[in-house]
Amino acid sequence: MAIVLGEHQYGKAENRIVRIYRDSPRHEIHDVNVSTALRGAFDPAHLTGDQGAVLPTDTQKQTAYSYAKEKGLTSIEPYGLTLAAHFVDDVEPVTGARIEIEEYEWERAVVDGADHDHTFVRKGQEVRTAAITVEGVGSSQTSHVIGGFKDLVLLKTTGSEFHGFLEDSYTVLEPTSDRIMATSLVAKWRFVMDEVGDPAAFDWEGVYLGIKRTMVGVFASLHSLALQQTLYEMGKAVLEQYPFLAEIRMSAPNKHHFLYDLSPFGLTNENEVFNADDRPYGLIQASVVRDDASAAGSAWTIAGGFA
Amino acid sequence: MAIVLGEHQYGKAENRIVRIYRDSPRHEIHDVNVSTALRGAFDPAHLTGDQGAVLPTDTQKQTAYSYAKEKGLTSIEPYGLTLAAHFVDDVEPVTGARIEIEEYEWERAVVDGADHDHTFVRKGQEVRTAAITVEGVGSSQTSHVIGGFKDLVLLKTTGSEFHGFLEDSYTVLEPTSDRIMATSLVAKWRFVMDEVGDPAAFDWEGVYLGIKRTMVGVFASLHSLALQQTLYEMGKAVLEQYPFLAEIRMSAPNKHHFLYDLSPFGLTNENEVFNADDRPYGLIQASVVRDDASAAGSAWTIAGGFA
Amino acid sequence: MAIVLGEHQYGKAENRIVRIYRDSPRHEIHDVNVSTALRGAFDPAHLTGDQGAVLPTDTQKQTAYSYAKEKGLTSIEPYGLTLAAHFVDDVEPVTGARIEIEEYEWERAVVDGADHDHTFVRKGQEVRTAAITVEGVGSSQTSHVIGGFKDLVLLKTTGSEFHGFLEDSYTVLEPTSDRIMATSLVAKWRFVMDEVGDPAAFDWEGVYLGIKRTMVGVFASLHSLALQQTLYEMGKAVLEQYPFLAEIRMSAPNKHHFLYDLSPFGLTNENEVFNADDRPYGLIQASVVRDDASAAGSAWTIAGGFA
Amino acid sequence: MAIVLGEHQYGKAENRIVRIYRDSPRHEIHDVNVSTALRGAFDPAHLTGDQGAVLPTDTQKQTAYSYAKEKGLTSIEPYGLTLAAHFVDDVEPVTGARIEIEEYEWERAVVDGADHDHTFVRKGQEVRTAAITVEGVGSSQTSHVIGGFKDLVLLKTTGSEFHGFLEDSYTVLEPTSDRIMATSLVAKWRFVMDEVGDPAAFDWEGVYLGIKRTMVGVFASLHSLALQQTLYEMGKAVLEQYPFLAEIRMSAPNKHHFLYDLSPFGLTNENEVFNADDRPYGLIQASVVRDDASAAGSAWTIAGGFA
Repeated sequence: MAIVLGEHQYGKAENRIVRIYRDSPRHEIHDVNVSTALRGAFDPAHLTGDQGAVLPTDTQKQTAYSYAKEKGLTSIEPYGLTLAAHFVDDVEPVTGARIEIEEYEWERAVVDGADHDHTFVRKGQEVRTAAITVEGVGSSQTSHVIGGFKDLVLLKTTGSEFHGFLEDSYTVLEPTSDRIMATSLVAKWRFVMDEVGDPAAFDWEGVYLGIKRTMVGVFASLHSLALQQTLYEMGKAVLEQYPFLAEIRMSAPNKHHFLYDLSPFGLTNENEVFNADDRPYGLIQASVVRDDASAAGSAWTIAGGFA
Repeated sequence: MAIVLGEHQYGKAENRIVRIYRDSPRHEIHDVNVSTALRGAFDPAHLTGDQGAVLPTDTQKQTAYSYAKEKGLTSIEPYGLTLAAHFVDDVEPVTGARIEIEEYEWERAVVDGADHDHTFVRKGQEVRTAAITVEGVGSSQTSHVIGGFKDLVLLKTTGSEFHGFLEDSYTVLEPTSDRIMATSLVAKWRFVMDEVGDPAAFDWEGVYLGIKRTMVGVFASLHSLALQQTLYEMGKAVLEQYPFLAEIRMSAPNKHHFLYDLSPFGLTNENEVFNADDRPYGLIQASVVRDDASAAGSAWTIAGGFA
Repeated sequence: MAIVLGEHQYGKAENRIVRIYRDSPRHEIHDVNVSTALRGAFDPAHLTGDQGAVLPTDTQKQTAYSYAKEKGLTSIEPYGLTLAAHFVDDVEPVTGARIEIEEYEWERAVVDGADHDHTFVRKGQEVRTAAITVEGVGSSQTSHVIGGFKDLVLLKTTGSEFHGFLEDSYTVLEPTSDRIMATSLVAKWRFVMDEVGDPAAFDWEGVYLGIKRTMVGVFASLHSLALQQTLYEMGKAVLEQYPFLAEIRMSAPNKHHFLYDLSPFGLTNENEVFNADDRPYGLIQASVVRDDASAAGSAWTIAGGFA
Repeated sequence: MAIVLGEHQYGKAENRIVRIYRDSPRHEIHDVNVSTALRGAFDPAHLTGDQGAVLPTDTQKQTAYSYAKEKGLTSIEPYGLTLAAHFVDDVEPVTGARIEIEEYEWERAVVDGADHDHTFVRKGQEVRTAAITVEGVGSSQTSHVIGGFKDLVLLKTTGSEFHGFLEDSYTVLEPTSDRIMATSLVAKWRFVMDEVGDPAAFDWEGVYLGIKRTMVGVFASLHSLALQQTLYEMGKAVLEQYPFLAEIRMSAPNKHHFLYDLSPFGLTNENEVFNADDRPYGLIQASVVRDDASAAGSAWTIAGGFA
């Protein structure tokens, strides 16, 4: 019975890279948070402190910034793929690389009714995300791309019910046929890379906007019997729309808005005044998958199960 | 030499009230965070524990929620005025009330190209603020209203210089004639209530949007020699536009975007790749005032100087 | 090619339960944050909105609070086991339950040199964690317990080197033979439940304190050639000490303290003045395992890979 | 009626300075967050963009780090005084300087029962604070020092009542004669600098610990009829103990712990199970002052009322 080193990875987290394109007076901005992680034969670093196989996290940082200039940084998915492939292809001990990216959106300032050329207002809505994994070299190399967003806060003031649920001796909740439904949605979708084809030619921006539009549309339009149902229909609509997606995973806090009791003050509260509660909150997590989808492999894996 | 009770106030902070108007199928939402504070003859509560003059903070909460229905909650400034006046007018020991409010904006979900009737996406941009103070009763009652916002994140990729500054033996900074200028702006403006007139008839929404539009416009258009200059011109433009404003105060972190050194990699970085740094940050605070403005009185006071 | 529901779970997150024992004048406090998640045959809720198999998240909350009284809440691991087993055993559609708990430690206030009976100061150091998974019923039921902590912030001012690393064309980092090493450690250890035996009789408190003491001791005592080496030795020492642990996983940000350049001011900085940087930061993740350990099964699984 | 520049200040916020003393094998650590702000004749920077009188915020940063070596950084109050006086005395356009400091405490790691020489664990309890203001030069120079802390989380499980309060038509709260009382205390005390004498010789560390000990003692020992009463007695005890303090200001959220209703499950909850609620919360703010105290001048002022 031996005690041995298990799974491990290391990298530089949260490189806050801002890339400006200023080829014309109408500048473009890309504002991202890039985390790198390398996997490979780094056992000596752990077992004896020998760093001979360890490319410093500082070097990973330098590379991430440099690639924003060398290779460009427009859509986050191909930027991440290029960076991940570099580490696996060019750094000998590295057998796998995972790049996680957050992107913060800016909109142009409006001045005298027109979009300004070089001034921006941070949009502040959802954060776009990507997680890219590249493993192996040469013809056996595999690449996984997961797109997504977090912190998309949605709310509908009617069109949501919750009743007919299972009851036991701890059940005191009253059923309702009209409530506020609100969530701060996290969604992650896995691309089938064979269908995507050349990452440099794929319409990453259009697909992102299309997925978001579809999900918001279903959330709004579906008369909901439960947040579970809404999530499933949102995911299904996205997969139906985009055949190059293998699956979508969603995590949705049920941000409770409790009807405030105004009866002590002689008032009837007809779904008009609510308390937006903080904790606890319901948390619904669900995935929708294409049943013949390619295997996910390490696409979702955070090495060693680290959260 | 005696030790005595000094300034004091108490209240209920961060009531998360959501008010829905559903008189027609096209619902409206107002999502606010209301904090109340009462000032008055509460010395016995401190000195002996006698609560006879203390209206519980729970009661203040109930009132804030109930008023959202009874009196309505559309613009935050008149809602706050009504609530503050109630505490001062109707609760005998109360001589002053301060109501602070944050408002979170939602935009309508777009479904099939049209704004949805009852589904909203949290906008996520700046948070609108208000601080209302009412003091005294009857004809000697005074009211102060401060409007404002926080967390408006602005950035311009050019049109900003910084040079010609004072140098001493600790100065190592290099001057620059082209840098990124970015801030997360806090602004607060004080209304001259005599000019505002009837709060129920005043265009609070239009004025708020106008102030924000003007400030963004100046930030974008002014070729800046320093963040100080930009702030002053933003404030001046707002006061010129709205004669019913007595003053405006701004607090602006200089969110540093440092040009990343790519020269070790044989690259020239022509203001294209930046590191968005976290800390430390410059912090510029300035006010612009009308020199004949009415006295601020307790408008800005956080009782006892509590921050 | 069909689109189908994939993995899913739901529950009530962040129930902030405070349990006071007041059987004697010397009160005890247990302050926890409990999240429940149920897995099972909830497909109809997603596919048609039928809630017949869904025990409301509100009911899960009521149960968590009630169990703090009915079953008691002292050590978080057996509390979580009891709660998880209840959902699986007593709620028909539930096939698996996962309970995640955070515990916030309080120490007794010291008054006149003595510990006070009923007044406490929040300790503010690391947060203790547990993740309990129970699956299946009757003789085929399996239980997994993961203990741990997060936010244990450690720093050593010497006794840490970093050199001899791999270099490529993006490497500019200088080697060092004396630096500050600091981290905010996350650790999670998996118990072999057969070795633990009766959860009601096991010394959960003593083991927790022993693991923490061992890890801090190794961090302090080991002359470190890399954070990787320190982590491995910390994990190994814990497994050597406690044979009932199958594995330990650690996630350790390298909280960089950069030597501040004082040379422009004619000063030599001999590892005396540092800038504590925020981002980016190195992130080292590693596990140490017993090579004959029982299978982890679903112990680490966050259903559907949801983070 | 002219529009003019009002109050203004500028500086570098949140310099995260870590100062190690390593004169012997037993190292010492001082971990602080320093913010500087300068006031003076900076009008041209605002009005025309002329920076000739503006010492860059970068220079302020360099000075803060350099002074940690040059002048030393042990107690935060004299460090802040020295830094503030430098800006006022040595930088011509500066007429006032305000230095705000937070300090994070570390305790020595315990290894084999003994305190370790160079390894520390972040204590995580309250954050110590200081705000130093120096104005004017030569014989007319005045200095103000405010010490304090924030985030000291205290809780007592009994010995706290709340009843006999004022009631109106919005009052639904029930009185109680036994409740949990908890707060996250902010306290700030103003030193009478004439009484302090030479800052280099004053026992800043002993006084800080004494104030904290006294406040915790009163919180624990006083049978409380209201948080107001507890605050007043805490402040009074501190002023009685230390004649060189002119006043103390406290801000105390009433962190509500609501008794959980277990009656639906046939259980009696005898102050054993509580829900620790997030928002809203009561907020009590009070000051205790020596009635013949020297004038506070600009000690509490955040220039221009900026929060």
